[in-house]
Amino acid sequence: MTKVSVIGATGYAGAELLSILIRHPQAKIAHITSESHTGKKISELYPHLRGLCDLTLESLADIDAIGKDSEFIFIALPHGHAMDVGLKLEKLPVRIIDLGADYRFTDTKIYESWYGVEHKHPNASRVYGLAEIYREDIRTAKIIGNAGCFTTASILALAPLVKHHLVDANSIIVDAASGVSGAGRGLKLGNHFPELYDNFKAYNVAKHRHTPEIEQALEDLGGERTVINFTPHLVPMSRGILATCYATLKDTVADEMIDASFQKMYGDEKFIRLLGRGGYPETKFVRGSNFCDIGWHVDDRTRRVIILSAIDNLVKGAAGQAVQNFNIAAGFDESTALDVVPMYP
Amino acid sequence: MTKVSVIGATGYAGAELLSILIRHPQAKIAHITSESHTGKKISELYPHLRGLCDLTLESLADIDAIGKDSEFIFIALPHGHAMDVGLKLEKLPVRIIDLGADYRFTDTKIYESWYGVEHKHPNASRVYGLAEIYREDIRTAKIIGNAGCFTTASILALAPLVKHHLVDANSIIVDAASGVSGAGRGLKLGNHFPELYDNFKAYNVAKHRHTPEIEQALEDLGGERTVINFTPHLVPMSRGILATCYATLKDTVADEMIDASFQKMYGDEKFIRLLGRGGYPETKFVRGSNFCDIGWHVDDRTRRVIILSAIDNLVKGAAGQAVQNFNIAAGFDESTALDVVPMYP
Amino acid sequence: MTKVSVIGATGYAGAELLSILIRHPQAKIAHITSESHTGKKISELYPHLRGLCDLTLESLADIDAIGKDSEFIFIALPHGHAMDVGLKLEKLPVRIIDLGADYRFTDTKIYESWYGVEHKHPNASRVYGLAEIYREDIRTAKIIGNAGCFTTASILALAPLVKHHLVDANSIIVDAASGVSGAGRGLKLGNHFPELYDNFKAYNVAKHRHTPEIEQALEDLGGERTVINFTPHLVPMSRGILATCYATLKDTVADEMIDASFQKMYGDEKFIRLLGRGGYPETKFVRGSNFCDIGWHVDDRTRRVIILSAIDNLVKGAAGQAVQNFNIAAGFDESTALDVVPMYP
Amino acid sequence: MTKVSVIGATGYAGAELLSILIRHPQAKIAHITSESHTGKKISELYPHLRGLCDLTLESLADIDAIGKDSEFIFIALPHGHAMDVGLKLEKLPVRIIDLGADYRFTDTKIYESWYGVEHKHPNASRVYGLAEIYREDIRTAKIIGNAGCFTTASILALAPLVKHHLVDANSIIVDAASGVSGAGRGLKLGNHFPELYDNFKAYNVAKHRHTPEIEQALEDLGGERTVINFTPHLVPMSRGILATCYATLKDTVADEMIDASFQKMYGDEKFIRLLGRGGYPETKFVRGSNFCDIGWHVDDRTRRVIILSAIDNLVKGAAGQAVQNFNIAAGFDESTALDVVPMYP
Repeated sequence: MTKVSVIGATGYAGAELLSILIRHPQAKIAHITSESHTGKKISELYPHLRGLCDLTLESLADIDAIGKDSEFIFIALPHGHAMDVGLKLEKLPVRIIDLGADYRFTDTKIYESWYGVEHKHPNASRVYGLAEIYREDIRTAKIIGNAGCFTTASILALAPLVKHHLVDANSIIVDAASGVSGAGRGLKLGNHFPELYDNFKAYNVAKHRHTPEIEQALEDLGGERTVINFTPHLVPMSRGILATCYATLKDTVADEMIDASFQKMYGDEKFIRLLGRGGYPETKFVRGSNFCDIGWHVDDRTRRVIILSAIDNLVKGAAGQAVQNFNIAAGFDESTALDVVPMYP
Repeated sequence: MTKVSVIGATGYAGAELLSILIRHPQAKIAHITSESHTGKKISELYPHLRGLCDLTLESLADIDAIGKDSEFIFIALPHGHAMDVGLKLEKLPVRIIDLGADYRFTDTKIYESWYGVEHKHPNASRVYGLAEIYREDIRTAKIIGNAGCFTTASILALAPLVKHHLVDANSIIVDAASGVSGAGRGLKLGNHFPELYDNFKAYNVAKHRHTPEIEQALEDLGGERTVINFTPHLVPMSRGILATCYATLKDTVADEMIDASFQKMYGDEKFIRLLGRGGYPETKFVRGSNFCDIGWHVDDRTRRVIILSAIDNLVKGAAGQAVQNFNIAAGFDESTALDVVPMYP
Repeated sequence: MTKVSVIGATGYAGAELLSILIRHPQAKIAHITSESHTGKKISELYPHLRGLCDLTLESLADIDAIGKDSEFIFIALPHGHAMDVGLKLEKLPVRIIDLGADYRFTDTKIYESWYGVEHKHPNASRVYGLAEIYREDIRTAKIIGNAGCFTTASILALAPLVKHHLVDANSIIVDAASGVSGAGRGLKLGNHFPELYDNFKAYNVAKHRHTPEIEQALEDLGGERTVINFTPHLVPMSRGILATCYATLKDTVADEMIDASFQKMYGDEKFIRLLGRGGYPETKFVRGSNFCDIGWHVDDRTRRVIILSAIDNLVKGAAGQAVQNFNIAAGFDESTALDVVPMYP
Repeated sequence: MTKVSVIGATGYAGAELLSILIRHPQAKIAHITSESHTGKKISELYPHLRGLCDLTLESLADIDAIGKDSEFIFIALPHGHAMDVGLKLEKLPVRIIDLGADYRFTDTKIYESWYGVEHKHPNASRVYGLAEIYREDIRTAKIIGNAGCFTTASILALAPLVKHHLVDANSIIVDAASGVSGAGRGLKLGNHFPELYDNFKAYNVAKHRHTPEIEQALEDLGGERTVINFTPHLVPMSRGILATCYATLKDTVADEMIDASFQKMYGDEKFIRLLGRGGYPETKFVRGSNFCDIGWHVDDRTRRVIILSAIDNLVKGAAGQAVQNFNIAAGFDESTALDVVPMYP
């Protein structure tokens, strides 16, 4: 059994991580932490875990001891805090999977300008944690910067087209919508039930922090400078992200070339289900699972391709992806503990 | 009191129309019809109307008599059926407000190619029923082709920019989302409660029939051929449309020119609330009302403008707009019976 | 125009009150207050009111001046605060409609034991604000203690049976469910969107404060000591209360006697819609309106009668009822500004 | 591997059964049937199963062959149809788990009077499929009549009190609420999304067919004739049942006796989580799992006990319970394939 710990276990991503890890046959949860609820049982905060996970929350103050007692550490803290943990664990053999943004950027200047904080660990040995693209690097990484939720849906939708240079990279627009769990468990008026119910809205237009993360991956795949529009929306539901991605096709691109690019890149991927040209993913078809469902449509009138992708923001968009990365890094079967049937209806 | 009748009163748009008309101090509902429920009281089908509107549904078979007994006829039938009614009423003095698509297109060839039916009344004297743009024509029109729901939100969002030539018309993408009432009261699996709840999806990508309707209005405003992308989504809620519209700014356009275009076109409009640059409309802020709230954002990185507009699909997107058109055509104050406070939360 | 003020205008009940009052043809809103948002416009806090009500929030510190400048004062403060206001206004001619619990109880000892605070204004001249039962007293009252939301639905459902002694008063069980707006705008984890969505729960079992309020009215109607069970539930929706009330029928009671009791008590009531024996109210059929819909069922196997009643908790359960009381007290038509069609679907 | 077949696989219970069985390490799905979709793949009807279960639906016409090729047959047909299947399979060694009502009643006269159909297989060798009460009988049963959804929640909540004679059996009232999946996948106006959203209602008051099923179990446990009230409600959510049960305590019953009765009966049950006196189950805490969470409250004022129980109607209320029964009958560990963590939030 591989010993793992979860730093920041009381947010939705942390709790989802515990839900997956307690079913993992090759992982043993050694420590879980929370600064605001130290000493409480996790099942007091999340009664759905009663009888399944009654571990007591510890404090980060003991991070050195926790690091020594763990082979892998998952960090589910707000951005800006994971790098403190990463720095402290740098000399220990423990490997890190950070669910936040601190270790996602190759160029920490980009991180600093979008997140407004100084990066304290710029020279960390790290890899971007999106297995379908960076699998080989993940196997041996010290620190894995787990891809974000909107970014996972967006990058997976666009990667084959950008990699094969079928679209004009600077024509890309990603219009995406997420369930409210993506905003976390922290209370705010906008997520108060009566405010959001029977309501739909956009937010952070032209300034959401997942924008540069998508651009980084697309630049890496396409080999050219890429500037996109990304617009997030909030859907009155708990879970799920649908990304609707637009790109202008290059002149000579035939529909079959588009189809082939998806097939080539994802044909063997266990967690990507290709619905093909004309396919319509729905968030509920992947709810609770690590799947990313993808369909695409070609508009001959405008010569744009529209790609639709759906994930569960807490699974493939956070905790599931983290465990997928963990499985790769630890040498386990990649789908261990992730062979969940989506919950429908 | 002006005598009005509603043909096809049992769909959601028809019922909403009744809800508004029973409060209208200058209108008297003379006849309401339904072919599938002839002889029933409308309040048996819509119990929220008990005691408020207990009229009995008649049949269209008597359309000539109904036409003679009405000054205005609202038609809320599926497309393809309104033109039959329009033809039959052509010689009568009664004026018509059609909530469907039959009378929306100047060029019936476009209607025929998108709707797949032959137009039987191509030479009808008609006007497009979007008051903020075609108010003067509405005053005297024989037939008003009430604008569609997605189209109302989209056109109102884009009109100032297109009219003032601030954007590249062929760069326009409209990504919109609607509550489920927009799909009507007819049963289908996709709108069965358990299927849609906690679910989000796109539909009719690159082929939704509101596309040419938006294009027609934008071409009329901008004076140039316009081909756009329009993508509808379904939100697990009852009412409301949010349109997120993207367009590339022309080179010399300053932010203030954008602001001024909205102010100039809508500054005096009673039903348009401008939230300004940086504003965020939410569907719930207009729920139950005839308002269209509009905000816009400029992305300097991509030189695109993103315009957000929100309406209640059954009010400003259907029945409210129809009554607004009726008020104009009948010479009443434009907001009669439409001075409703949005229902929040 | 009668000058009215709203003390505590930023909660849901306060905002709903403004929504109704701005349409009231005989009322003029003089002052609105909020201690936490003094100086802001109400439409900054409730953007649905933009352009409809842009009044600035004042502070309670000026209550004397506000009292002198108002003919009626609506109080929408948490319990325990209204009595301070009531005391300060005692000598002024202004009349008070309190939406909270402070003035609901004839016996302030009951208030004190259930609410856990000392009553500072026990000798206030007051009447219970449920018009269908206490209309005559309301006409001239100095202070009206507006009935609570669950209590309104429960009392109206049970009153005819208790008044006519058709049921065993001590067999009564009220099992009720409310939308989340009933819990107010204050943030708490239980009402955080992701926690409540797709969730249903009971709360405050055997100890909800609406219990003694229901008992007081039933005792008043039936003339005997009455102890009941009341269990509230939270429904993942915004608005609406359904009360399911159980009572054991007395031996000789025939079904027609039950029907007659409802007809006799409510036959002329404008805001009560009797669906009859076998009728099924639904919360959405009254949404946004001041209606209380009531249906009842007799179970011959158990000799119990089950009464169902539905209201909108913010309208007939709070702000609408307050305006109904205001209309009565001010001598206006009782339905002024309340002739709203329920919003459906 | 034990070969199992599912008759009627396209309803929600059937699909949930497949979701569980495909993860079952000791079961192999041999046949699945549907009369209306014969020849289609199940994943065409339920796209969430794409890649996980792409079996083709057969017809019941081959029931004899299916029966010979199966060790266990799950039937998820509407009531009245399972007994036809049961009759045809009577002579084969295959064992049957029926998710419908046909085999739930010891006294088929009760079935006939509540369901309005003649029972064609009254002498079938059968047992009521509620493992926590009838586990020993289930081990060897030929036919298991899987307990219903509302009934499971109700019986489990009341069983300890009735068995230990702590309450007056004829004082019992069960007021329960269910998510909409309980009404099945068949389309009807009441379950059309816009009708039910933001809505709450009771239905089938005093006549729901789960009433006699609850009474049968309680009579069996308590040894006395029992007549109860059962009232179902529909909650605008997908999954979950909460039962709120009322019973009058016998005179000498102390709180500790209540606590002890639950502990004694369920202390070792894997799928029952006791939240204790004062505990509040929520449907979301058990969503997607086979758990039944139970809490109870004593009202000293009325001397009633109020018991709350929560289940997922499609799991512990249908498919999960069926697999639990299957595990018992087949001699497997009772929780095989049922060790699912509830999905939260």
